[in-house]
Amino acid sequence: MRDILDAVADGELSPTAAEAELRGYARTDAGRFDAARAARTGIPEGIIAAGKTPEETASMAVAAVETTECALVTRVDATTVEACRTRLDERFPDADVAYDDRARTLVVHAPEYEPPSLSATAAVVTAGTSDAFPAGEAAVVLEEIGARVERIDDVGVAGIARLFDRLDAIREADVLVVAAGREGALPTVLAGLVDVPLIAVPVSTGYGHGGSGEAALAGMLQSCAPLMVVNIDAGFTAGAQAGLIARSISAARAE
Amino acid sequence: MRDILDAVADGELSPTAAEAELRGYARTDAGRFDAARAARTGIPEGIIAAGKTPEETASMAVAAVETTECALVTRVDATTVEACRTRLDERFPDADVAYDDRARTLVVHAPEYEPPSLSATAAVVTAGTSDAFPAGEAAVVLEEIGARVERIDDVGVAGIARLFDRLDAIREADVLVVAAGREGALPTVLAGLVDVPLIAVPVSTGYGHGGSGEAALAGMLQSCAPLMVVNIDAGFTAGAQAGLIARSISAARAE
Amino acid sequence: MRDILDAVADGELSPTAAEAELRGYARTDAGRFDAARAARTGIPEGIIAAGKTPEETASMAVAAVETTECALVTRVDATTVEACRTRLDERFPDADVAYDDRARTLVVHAPEYEPPSLSATAAVVTAGTSDAFPAGEAAVVLEEIGARVERIDDVGVAGIARLFDRLDAIREADVLVVAAGREGALPTVLAGLVDVPLIAVPVSTGYGHGGSGEAALAGMLQSCAPLMVVNIDAGFTAGAQAGLIARSISAARAE
Amino acid sequence: MRDILDAVADGELSPTAAEAELRGYARTDAGRFDAARAARTGIPEGIIAAGKTPEETASMAVAAVETTECALVTRVDATTVEACRTRLDERFPDADVAYDDRARTLVVHAPEYEPPSLSATAAVVTAGTSDAFPAGEAAVVLEEIGARVERIDDVGVAGIARLFDRLDAIREADVLVVAAGREGALPTVLAGLVDVPLIAVPVSTGYGHGGSGEAALAGMLQSCAPLMVVNIDAGFTAGAQAGLIARSISAARAE
Amino acid sequence: MRDILDAVADGELSPTAAEAELRGYARTDAGRFDAARAARTGIPEGIIAAGKTPEETASMAVAAVETTECALVTRVDATTVEACRTRLDERFPDADVAYDDRARTLVVHAPEYEPPSLSATAAVVTAGTSDAFPAGEAAVVLEEIGARVERIDDVGVAGIARLFDRLDAIREADVLVVAAGREGALPTVLAGLVDVPLIAVPVSTGYGHGGSGEAALAGMLQSCAPLMVVNIDAGFTAGAQAGLIARSISAARAE
Amino acid sequence: MRDILDAVADGELSPTAAEAELRGYARTDAGRFDAARAARTGIPEGIIAAGKTPEETASMAVAAVETTECALVTRVDATTVEACRTRLDERFPDADVAYDDRARTLVVHAPEYEPPSLSATAAVVTAGTSDAFPAGEAAVVLEEIGARVERIDDVGVAGIARLFDRLDAIREADVLVVAAGREGALPTVLAGLVDVPLIAVPVSTGYGHGGSGEAALAGMLQSCAPLMVVNIDAGFTAGAQAGLIARSISAARAE
Amino acid sequence: MRDILDAVADGELSPTAAEAELRGYARTDAGRFDAARAARTGIPEGIIAAGKTPEETASMAVAAVETTECALVTRVDATTVEACRTRLDERFPDADVAYDDRARTLVVHAPEYEPPSLSATAAVVTAGTSDAFPAGEAAVVLEEIGARVERIDDVGVAGIARLFDRLDAIREADVLVVAAGREGALPTVLAGLVDVPLIAVPVSTGYGHGGSGEAALAGMLQSCAPLMVVNIDAGFTAGAQAGLIARSISAARAE
Amino acid sequence: MRDILDAVADGELSPTAAEAELRGYARTDAGRFDAARAARTGIPEGIIAAGKTPEETASMAVAAVETTECALVTRVDATTVEACRTRLDERFPDADVAYDDRARTLVVHAPEYEPPSLSATAAVVTAGTSDAFPAGEAAVVLEEIGARVERIDDVGVAGIARLFDRLDAIREADVLVVAAGREGALPTVLAGLVDVPLIAVPVSTGYGHGGSGEAALAGMLQSCAPLMVVNIDAGFTAGAQAGLIARSISAARAE
Repeated sequence: MRDILDAVADGELSPTAAEAELRGYARTDAGRFDAARAARTGIPEGIIAAGKTPEETASMAVAAVETTECALVTRVDATTVEACRTRLDERFPDADVAYDDRARTLVVHAPEYEPPSLSATAAVVTAGTSDAFPAGEAAVVLEEIGARVERIDDVGVAGIARLFDRLDAIREADVLVVAAGREGALPTVLAGLVDVPLIAVPVSTGYGHGGSGEAALAGMLQSCAPLMVVNIDAGFTAGAQAGLIARSISAARAE
Repeated sequence: MRDILDAVADGELSPTAAEAELRGYARTDAGRFDAARAARTGIPEGIIAAGKTPEETASMAVAAVETTECALVTRVDATTVEACRTRLDERFPDADVAYDDRARTLVVHAPEYEPPSLSATAAVVTAGTSDAFPAGEAAVVLEEIGARVERIDDVGVAGIARLFDRLDAIREADVLVVAAGREGALPTVLAGLVDVPLIAVPVSTGYGHGGSGEAALAGMLQSCAPLMVVNIDAGFTAGAQAGLIARSISAARAE
Repeated sequence: MRDILDAVADGELSPTAAEAELRGYARTDAGRFDAARAARTGIPEGIIAAGKTPEETASMAVAAVETTECALVTRVDATTVEACRTRLDERFPDADVAYDDRARTLVVHAPEYEPPSLSATAAVVTAGTSDAFPAGEAAVVLEEIGARVERIDDVGVAGIARLFDRLDAIREADVLVVAAGREGALPTVLAGLVDVPLIAVPVSTGYGHGGSGEAALAGMLQSCAPLMVVNIDAGFTAGAQAGLIARSISAARAE
Repeated sequence: MRDILDAVADGELSPTAAEAELRGYARTDAGRFDAARAARTGIPEGIIAAGKTPEETASMAVAAVETTECALVTRVDATTVEACRTRLDERFPDADVAYDDRARTLVVHAPEYEPPSLSATAAVVTAGTSDAFPAGEAAVVLEEIGARVERIDDVGVAGIARLFDRLDAIREADVLVVAAGREGALPTVLAGLVDVPLIAVPVSTGYGHGGSGEAALAGMLQSCAPLMVVNIDAGFTAGAQAGLIARSISAARAE
Repeated sequence: MRDILDAVADGELSPTAAEAELRGYARTDAGRFDAARAARTGIPEGIIAAGKTPEETASMAVAAVETTECALVTRVDATTVEACRTRLDERFPDADVAYDDRARTLVVHAPEYEPPSLSATAAVVTAGTSDAFPAGEAAVVLEEIGARVERIDDVGVAGIARLFDRLDAIREADVLVVAAGREGALPTVLAGLVDVPLIAVPVSTGYGHGGSGEAALAGMLQSCAPLMVVNIDAGFTAGAQAGLIARSISAARAE
Repeated sequence: MRDILDAVADGELSPTAAEAELRGYARTDAGRFDAARAARTGIPEGIIAAGKTPEETASMAVAAVETTECALVTRVDATTVEACRTRLDERFPDADVAYDDRARTLVVHAPEYEPPSLSATAAVVTAGTSDAFPAGEAAVVLEEIGARVERIDDVGVAGIARLFDRLDAIREADVLVVAAGREGALPTVLAGLVDVPLIAVPVSTGYGHGGSGEAALAGMLQSCAPLMVVNIDAGFTAGAQAGLIARSISAARAE
Repeated sequence: MRDILDAVADGELSPTAAEAELRGYARTDAGRFDAARAARTGIPEGIIAAGKTPEETASMAVAAVETTECALVTRVDATTVEACRTRLDERFPDADVAYDDRARTLVVHAPEYEPPSLSATAAVVTAGTSDAFPAGEAAVVLEEIGARVERIDDVGVAGIARLFDRLDAIREADVLVVAAGREGALPTVLAGLVDVPLIAVPVSTGYGHGGSGEAALAGMLQSCAPLMVVNIDAGFTAGAQAGLIARSISAARAE
Repeated sequence: MRDILDAVADGELSPTAAEAELRGYARTDAGRFDAARAARTGIPEGIIAAGKTPEETASMAVAAVETTECALVTRVDATTVEACRTRLDERFPDADVAYDDRARTLVVHAPEYEPPSLSATAAVVTAGTSDAFPAGEAAVVLEEIGARVERIDDVGVAGIARLFDRLDAIREADVLVVAAGREGALPTVLAGLVDVPLIAVPVSTGYGHGGSGEAALAGMLQSCAPLMVVNIDAGFTAGAQAGLIARSISAARAE
């Protein structure tokens, strides 16, 4: 502890980083940032922009970089991206800032950040174009955890030949994240064809009865082929748990 | 009208049959029997045993045979079947009485009844064993309307190879009735592979969230491949409308 | 395959059209376009504008015309129509572009396109003015499939005399699509009066409990007269399946 | 008050009746009986047997007769009827006890009871046989309030000619109670054809989505023709309010 | 019929009015106007502005005045009111046009219109300020039907003394319309205190679980004191049926 | 710890009691019994009989008495009571065993048990007879915590005079538990009349829409008068928290 | 009463204040203000800005200050705050006006107002940043009732060490208000660790199935540790009842 | 194929086993048994006894042993177990038949069966006693797949110290299955403390709002700590996917 305080006194450590070191979290205007999350759970603390002002999000992104050398912001829009870039530019002008508009994510790496790298592959599979947002979010989280990510798009069951075309590629992955909206049948069909862990992501497409992803969620929970499910549009959750699976496999390979 | 009354006077026509002739329906202890239904809508009036006492059901079955020379009773159990047989034996000892315990139907044909015969085929397809009840009900209704019925069972998507094995047989039908429970994905997959009318029947299997057929119903309504839907377990409805489609095609063939 | 590649080399075939020929689908910025859909299922691949940017929709419309000589875009708004017209004008200046603001559809025919023509009629029936959108969508799909379409409007059951006035016209059709909101009683009443296949479309009118079309959907599924149902506002689905029925009848007539 | 206590002392008044006189309610083993209800609201206090033991119900029926000279018990079964008869026979051997097994009601009149009689008519209309229970309950309540009751049965919309046959009879009533299950369309159709107050009773028939009367309830609340609704199977409520309407009209006629 | 056509020829009757005379309804750009509704059901045809363009609403309002000498438009906003005034000014410059912004209604009377007048009173009771919209709508409908209307506001049960203060005034009415949001307890409490027909209107106030009026609706349907219910915010329906009750009582008084 | 082990060795302490002393919980065939619960949270660990076999319940009751000198079993039926009595008689022949059939509770006190006694009063108020089960459960829990309990029954709002008769008694309590089914209006009316903490308990009475206590729960959550709510029929929870409030007040009085 | 009227005549009392004195409530443009609420129930009448125009809210705030020397406005936005400030400045230029943008409350104290002060403490605990609104609302209500308020923020269970860090502070309070969104697990965990009354507030965060606070509400009602619940986001209700508990404890301390 | 037919001819292979070899599934009275499932997906085909007659279940169990040398039957009751034992004894007298009454599973191993064995561990964690059924089912499936299984019971969050006592044991596992009913908070708390994949199983305990496991399911889907979810009581699904994860890790260890 004395070392940390000395480093603060010497200006080598910001008070935010020092607090994170001592307590495991940093305080910001927009609440606490749980800097110890990744160490404790293997999953980086994501900052959800939805429901926060752009300034609050930017302030948490800065705290994240300050304490963990990286930041992962989800559900961003253009205004939030702008606010983050401005604040990050001031504080970490050399940081690498990557915005993915389909996935609606913003990923920040400080120059000194050493991203993890796993020897395991996750395939992120979508039924159609409208599944791009949660699938993209899952892919970004997986990449941050260090997994190799394979994207397999537009293989929905309405034209099932498309799925069979890509089956070999899918089977090569160590774990699958499968996003589908409307009736959400793709994960069920796929789970009957592969022998690796499969996480299904219901997507909030569709209208009328069972719209907003409720039909897809219910169908995945009732699937006649066993599979795991996350909440509607919960790409982050799917990517995080798929990342843990990839991490375990990678660690086992390294044993 | 005079002819009818004369026939009653002569004992050639029962009062029940005379009333049906004059008004289009017959009165029974258990309510009216709509004897003109088949003529008006092309669909025989089904007698739903569920919610009636065995005696009420038997009384309506007798009225049906008396006025239309046939009866179609659905959702029967063993006690109801017994009650119907007893009453029918007294009144129509020569009638043909057929009980299907999987379909839970009882079909009665008076000796003089001439069943319709269509030159059109309906395939009744199931995902698994537990879909036998509504699929069977649909098949019986289709047969009463006169369609040729092809049964294709156990082709659920969890082992999709089974479906492809039977695809040629399925494609030969003029209209499809497809029953599936749990997540109900089979009709969606099939609708992307065929070019004939397809009626999906959600089945009340499954448990937990979306159980009792609600997940299957919602998924079929949201299907990314266009298809028609009936209520959960509504085999009669599916068979009746598939029968109308078969009848139209058969009539067109005869033009 | 060599022929196709030669044609591309000679500039007689665009790469998009060549890919569609070879794989059955074309890739666009907004995802794949399933060019083989109509051949496989008898139903043209509809492009749903809702949930896409005007540019994405326009890009898919162009791919559709390029590969199938026609395009059918649904749930369009004014901006999307404008974007489509602009892109189509550049690429297919002689195409016929028809926008129906009530049905919210955009239909495009290349000059060389030969639309199908069936000898079968579908009646599209509405209960009231607010059913115009899904009814119109169903009618447009039916026309694209080649059916003759008869429109019967404003015959809701609150003034049931209006329905009886039009009953003869309704009975002449080979198949019925019946759209109704609020309590959705019209299809039930009608199904007791006709002997042709009937597809009910619940419409998202009404407010309070059972609003957004849920009361109409539940009522149609529970109908005491057998009928087929599609999801709330699902005019495309109703039109597509009614089109398959019309196509089967037409083919039977031609046998 | 002294008079009442004197009457108790003289054995002319039971303590229960005295308590009811003084407080407006009587205490029983099964809770209070609100003897002043009819005077205050024009609606007799109904004793709901469902959820009570036969003994509790019988005890409340005795208290009802003791304090108001009559009793109205609803949702009875055979055991409860037996228990009531036994207890009533002991205490009020001359009372008139009427059990209606379709309506599941038990009505008790002490010999000295003078039933009310109104110069107004209520029609109780049903769509089919399975609506007999709530319709019967409504009719019994109406009769206890003194209205003339006309029963119009089996006029459901699946065979709408049956409804038109009886329309004149229906139009003669001062107020309508209309019970229907499944999709519950009858009250909507009827409300577009008559100009008297109409109370719709959804009935708990049907199965699958919208079963247990929920589809009928939602449809009646959404009805495109204005009408009043009570809860599913709430025949008592419908009869009670229809009785108040009949009572007001009868009183106005007497002015 | 000849007379009507002659009158059209002579310019004494507009084609719209002539059509209404002959068929019972008039055609407008926005659909049919059921001009015979009031005669058939005792309830004027209301024009619901919500879901229509201002122009469509105005066009129907003109058709209503043309065929029935009056118009009743509900759920209007400022723009619609403006559009209606403009169109009505052109066509019926002397008409009386009354806009009620709380009730969100627009009432139009042609100079020659003779409004009905009943000798019966309806009380419209509210629990709080936020019930003003449906209560106002009910009051306007009642007035158009000719009932005397008494408004009793702000007597919600959270301060129950307010209710007892106004109880005598409430008891004088022939029929009650009682609007309440949140938990909707007012109609239940009131129904235990009065002996006249009572129609409860759940109001879409409140938030969280049971918000949007669903808690109030469910509570009114479950009320331990019998009462009639309409859909959430359905002031028109409540006013229309209360009007029919008032009309019957008024007619009985006149016998 | 040595003392405890010595006591076990000497037979002064059973192994179960020793384990509870050391770990805070005791192991039984039916799972752990949290013997430290009362000390930690002020609320005795209740044993819910529903969902357990009579033997499992009895085994946990014995463990409870062994470790805490008392046991509180809820949702018991006759068979479970019998099983408990048998097991308790063997092990603790002198224990006081009290069964309340309305509250469906079984309370056991070892002879050496010294029940707590608070100087604070809780009133348990019910709307009607059918609220007896959860109200009784709450009362028993309150008594075990040591509060004085006042019962106020049958004061439902359908006859609101009954409530006003008892208002003074209600106002004397330090905290209120108010149970009501159907529409659940009683707690709302009462919360507008008193100035002490009020916990509302929705009761699973009623039928149709909003039945099983859902209407009452939603109404209590939406109450226009602020109040606290527990789950449907959750008498234990209400009694436990009311007991904590009484305990705090009692402690404050003792300061 | 004469004194009040004399005071009005002398200009010492405004008519609004006089009416409040005489009747217990004041009339404003936006409905009645229940000035006697605090005296009757111990909870100040809150003015909910949501659903009112800024002018209506301001008018009620003025009436509140006029009759009770204070005002508590909830769910305000910037426009409403501005409107209130303007109106209050005119009428009560010396009043203390405090706006809390996180809690979305506006509190007004007239100079002569003597706020209550209790010797009891409430802790308001939040799981995360997004719980700030209802937690803040609860804190403001508690302060107006006079309780000491301790804020404990950001102790959600995803990083449970944060909760244990603050447990001693939490245990010192006399009553707890615990706000949590998403799955809402914090109150359950906390209720197993403390022995004071605990009110849980579900917060409308989260998305997909169980979003809008419904998962948190259901989880709190089902909590395996007994606790009390209010509606989603109902900070006012939680603060009001916690205030009553604090008031009772404070009063007991003063005995 | 010739070899197989020769083996049948020689009696070395039963027709059932031959069919399974040739087609991948075997036909039984109760439907097809998918003998190739385990090879294709890594998960043994489970036979769900619920919804089948004991004879149907027994017949499928025999087919399973015949084709795969083992059988896994779930949701059995005593009668089904008896029927299976009888049939298996006749056909495979030396088979090992293990019945687990808490897990409600029946596992059959032919003498020649060589069960898989993985070098990976799954922990199956429960909140309380009532979670035993789905947790047990998951454990049995895991064991059949070959994983080592560690059981950690009764660590629900109401007494959170119990959880911390076992945290080290939990952290040693490669994958976690965590079952909890009521509010289902345990998986959320645990997911914030571990860094291995976690599958949450909601259990159908609890009553009232959110009962039958719906509150637990919604809370797990909304969890603020990322985790994977299966349907209510879906122990088989959780065990199957956890088994796939264990299998992948085991395979990686063997690389």
